[in-house]
Amino acid sequence: MIDEKLKKQIEFMLELDKMKNLYRQTYVLHEDRKENDAEHSWHIAMMAFLLAEYAQPDTDIFKVMKMLIVHDVVEIDAGDTYCYDYEGYKSKAEREEKASQRIFGILPEVQKTEFYSLWREFEDGLTPEAKFAGLLDRLQPIILNYSKNGISWQEHTVKSEQVKDRTKQFADVSPELYELIDKIINDSAQKGYLGI
Amino acid sequence: MIDEKLKKQIEFMLELDKMKNLYRQTYVLHEDRKENDAEHSWHIAMMAFLLAEYAQPDTDIFKVMKMLIVHDVVEIDAGDTYCYDYEGYKSKAEREEKASQRIFGILPEVQKTEFYSLWREFEDGLTPEAKFAGLLDRLQPIILNYSKNGISWQEHTVKSEQVKDRTKQFADVSPELYELIDKIINDSAQKGYLGI
Repeated sequence: MIDEKLKKQIEFMLELDKMKNLYRQTYVLHEDRKENDAEHSWHIAMMAFLLAEYAQPDTDIFKVMKMLIVHDVVEIDAGDTYCYDYEGYKSKAEREEKASQRIFGILPEVQKTEFYSLWREFEDGLTPEAKFAGLLDRLQPIILNYSKNGISWQEHTVKSEQVKDRTKQFADVSPELYELIDKIINDSAQKGYLGI
Repeated sequence: MIDEKLKKQIEFMLELDKMKNLYRQTYVLHEDRKENDAEHSWHIAMMAFLLAEYAQPDTDIFKVMKMLIVHDVVEIDAGDTYCYDYEGYKSKAEREEKASQRIFGILPEVQKTEFYSLWREFEDGLTPEAKFAGLLDRLQPIILNYSKNGISWQEHTVKSEQVKDRTKQFADVSPELYELIDKIINDSAQKGYLGI
């Protein structure tokens, strides 16, 4: 007999397979299709240790990686809310809180609390780890979009000011990465990838 | 001007986008398609901390996660070698070593060494971290395949003895997870998902 606890953990792992068909607004670079949440989460977890040197000193990168791997699982129930969908953002918190209860509720009790806390900390965005994780979550689609001539910005007629507005909170989190974002936004505006 | 070091890091991050269209033999659960390396790497990195309690004491789970996020990037050049492709396995080490030189070679010098070492340690499979990472890398497709009625085992007419042979090395790495693997193999043989 497989232990009840391990059974719940495997059930959770299987539930999370749904992340592989939750499509975001960003495109992958080498196929004509959008990126899914599993791919996105892997990419930013990799960026967490690739770009760790640009985090504030003493940022716990292990925690950042765990957050990034977990942060999107609530979208299994709540769906992906596009960063520039201001209407969708009004109900995002409520939808995601409800989703977190069901999805983390699959876990054994101790882990339910651990996973929920990681996700909650990411959403609240107050700790150095949550801030750095939030920056990477925003940076990755900006770089991908820029590399694909602004395709998803154009589909949603996003303006450079909107991207600036959604990233300005990261200026103090990592000056180097914020400078990179700023350069990409300005260059994208100049090239017409982003509206002015 | 963006610093040369950061440029190399972004170039590496963009190169790795190719992981999103490197398809494995395992299927995702909720679409009729195979899983790609990015999705697989995310799933097993998540399993690393979900199932951390089943690792040997003092296993560095942060290192396990980093290994799992990085371990498949050599497949960008070397391709995926199916676990039961005994012919392909003959040239796997050489193809992957060559790939590792080019791909990690994109990184700034210090990180080239760090990433290569992580990958090498995973492949050598000698440390507690590499052993636990190796187990998760093998366990995930077994669970997915089992949940999809053995579809990819059937496509490749895999026999239960082959799966046993490819997993027996993990008996001491985690008795609990090995027991789970053993039960899945036996049940799969009984149900006809695996050949006898």
